[in-house]
Amino acid sequence: MSILIKSVLLNGKEVDVFIQGSIIKKIGKNLGIDRSSTHIISGKDKAIFPSFFNVHTHAAMTLLRGYADDMELHTWLNDYIWPFERKLTPEDVYWGTKLACLEMIKTGTTFFCDMYWHVDAIAHAVDEMGMRAALSSAYVDFEDPKKGDLFKKKNKKFFDSLPNVDKSRIKFIMGPHAIYTVSRDSLIWIRDFAKERKLYINIHLAETKKERDDCLKIRGLTPVRYLEEIGFLSNKCICAHVIWVDEQEMDILKQREVNIAHVPASNMKLCSGSFKFDKVLKKGLLIGLGTDGCASNNNLDMLEEMKIAALRAKMGSNDPTCAKSKDIFKCATQNGARMFQINGGEIKEGMVADCILVDLNHPQMIPHHNLISNLVYSANGDCVVTTICNGKILMQDRRVKGEEEIIKKNKAIAASILKRM
Amino acid sequence: MSILIKSVLLNGKEVDVFIQGSIIKKIGKNLGIDRSSTHIISGKDKAIFPSFFNVHTHAAMTLLRGYADDMELHTWLNDYIWPFERKLTPEDVYWGTKLACLEMIKTGTTFFCDMYWHVDAIAHAVDEMGMRAALSSAYVDFEDPKKGDLFKKKNKKFFDSLPNVDKSRIKFIMGPHAIYTVSRDSLIWIRDFAKERKLYINIHLAETKKERDDCLKIRGLTPVRYLEEIGFLSNKCICAHVIWVDEQEMDILKQREVNIAHVPASNMKLCSGSFKFDKVLKKGLLIGLGTDGCASNNNLDMLEEMKIAALRAKMGSNDPTCAKSKDIFKCATQNGARMFQINGGEIKEGMVADCILVDLNHPQMIPHHNLISNLVYSANGDCVVTTICNGKILMQDRRVKGEEEIIKKNKAIAASILKRM
Repeated sequence: MSILIKSVLLNGKEVDVFIQGSIIKKIGKNLGIDRSSTHIISGKDKAIFPSFFNVHTHAAMTLLRGYADDMELHTWLNDYIWPFERKLTPEDVYWGTKLACLEMIKTGTTFFCDMYWHVDAIAHAVDEMGMRAALSSAYVDFEDPKKGDLFKKKNKKFFDSLPNVDKSRIKFIMGPHAIYTVSRDSLIWIRDFAKERKLYINIHLAETKKERDDCLKIRGLTPVRYLEEIGFLSNKCICAHVIWVDEQEMDILKQREVNIAHVPASNMKLCSGSFKFDKVLKKGLLIGLGTDGCASNNNLDMLEEMKIAALRAKMGSNDPTCAKSKDIFKCATQNGARMFQINGGEIKEGMVADCILVDLNHPQMIPHHNLISNLVYSANGDCVVTTICNGKILMQDRRVKGEEEIIKKNKAIAASILKRM
Repeated sequence: MSILIKSVLLNGKEVDVFIQGSIIKKIGKNLGIDRSSTHIISGKDKAIFPSFFNVHTHAAMTLLRGYADDMELHTWLNDYIWPFERKLTPEDVYWGTKLACLEMIKTGTTFFCDMYWHVDAIAHAVDEMGMRAALSSAYVDFEDPKKGDLFKKKNKKFFDSLPNVDKSRIKFIMGPHAIYTVSRDSLIWIRDFAKERKLYINIHLAETKKERDDCLKIRGLTPVRYLEEIGFLSNKCICAHVIWVDEQEMDILKQREVNIAHVPASNMKLCSGSFKFDKVLKKGLLIGLGTDGCASNNNLDMLEEMKIAALRAKMGSNDPTCAKSKDIFKCATQNGARMFQINGGEIKEGMVADCILVDLNHPQMIPHHNLISNLVYSANGDCVVTTICNGKILMQDRRVKGEEEIIKKNKAIAASILKRM
């Protein structure tokens, strides 16, 4: 079944958008199509935009939303997050991921890059929800060679026999957690394994001052220079945070064409430090936007994240003219697509049909001086009325298939985990 | 007509809430009431909270939403905001305020403190929308004695014959814009006039470094000390921003029981500086939360403002344990009520019936580990399903009376203003 979005606003003009298979086939005025095999959506009082690419999250952490806030990092991790996570079964993670997908679809996101455990369960959740994703399993050996060997074996086995899901939407990637939780030996193994299998690598990098200070003490190098020294960095790396870096490290990252996942809300909530948005952008690095997990945000709404990113960047550089709404919107859409080599993130003929319709009559979208500004600074996720991914309608008129069951299940699971503790 | 909210969640317990006239009359289990004269609302899958008090905004600036962003302050004001505002008629301001009220009602706010022009038109808009407000007309004489005399006369005339609106909901207050736009002579007149008439005073204070530096140069005193010197400060003052103040100035403000309107999104967007939330809170000053106008935010959603306030405060003090969700929630509700001596901001018997029902099945409210945390860090304004002010239902099931006309009018007016320029 094809889709025709009739008379929808695109870049200030009213057009028809015709989607065939997974692709935006044709954009124009009064398109003539075979109505018998086409699902028609009215674009009246709606604008079409690319959907969002959330390039860093831990989706199943929806189950921890509101469980632990306003705490010092170590108390938060040791006394709350980790004990809770130790109780999570694959079934819990499956439903937690479904809740995350539901929230993302309802707020206009169709792609996310994930790092968590029980990736098999995650993959099936994403597959059923119809989203696009890059999924990694957290690789954490804590410098223990035995654990390192175990993770190598597990990863090899996993990539030799991937879950039976739609590979056109779901990529599997490597997930070394960070330089302080993964040994040098494992990082080198991951580097080679990823190269051999042509895999992306998802890693947290230079998130806290402690990470930088400890790395300098132990390795005699900063985190970026340490990864450069072992030849780890490439255009297949998606590095989250990248806060504690100097100019020269930015140059190294640029030279290696490393991709940056900027997660401003989480950085502010955990007091991680100040991401130098303006400088990193001027260096020409590719910046995508991510929400991080729900324990440190606490939602997955990319519209809210865009606003926080813009405000944070302006404040950080003390320059209200930086981080313009169009730059931030690009980070949240086409940059995310580009870093995963997905031919999307824009509404153009030939691109994948990953798009949203936004309600132009939502009070927060009125008036219509500048719709991109309205999306970045004023709208929230509920302004999205229709979400399409890979040419399939995942939400129409704010209804997502199966949402009641997902809500019910997650309420029950969250309560049951507390009882298990 | 009384209202009974049946089986609604309040502080973790399911109760009935009975509203009679403008007051929360009774809270308890299975309340017996006269059903013939009572409107019953189901509280199933909903929680009740106090509605929000937006203590600093310029409501009609909804008309400028998205008109000018990402600019240096002077370009923004001189080339965009002021030329646009000069074209605004009372009719425009009336409709712009209605749009603001619509947005606020839809995001759970029932009170706002305003400063703008054409207060007569504003008052009628608020009266018709059923909200509570404290309205001030911007007093700006630019050190010109002739203008000062004009403003004095206009204010006297205005307060001698107030608009014919519901005074139980709408207060009229004084609105000296700032120390750099109002002469010393006018400030002293306002001080005395407000004292004589028992009026609140709404003023921008210590917003930018330039304001502080200029005041030091011209008056030999910082802005707070200048106002202290002329005996201006009292518990009737609502001071917005209050960023560029030292410890001793905080002590002066505390001693005079001055009320603070904190507007974090606007401060970040315009790079005004860092409000010292933690220190001001510890001094025991009353902090309310405001959105500022839509040209510098660009919405009026207090749920989003709470999150930005919490993240900004944590980052500013480099302490993730400060600005806890319950403190921020208090700023957005009962502190706002307290500073305007409104017996509200909490769900308690005897308080005014200003409250909201929140959808507990909204994905961003799941799971229910901590509902206050969910409101502050995860929810957006669209999670509010019902808004009640002064015992009247302003929104039920997300429907507000007359919203289509407000949207239509504002689209037309915004477009027509551009043509007039």
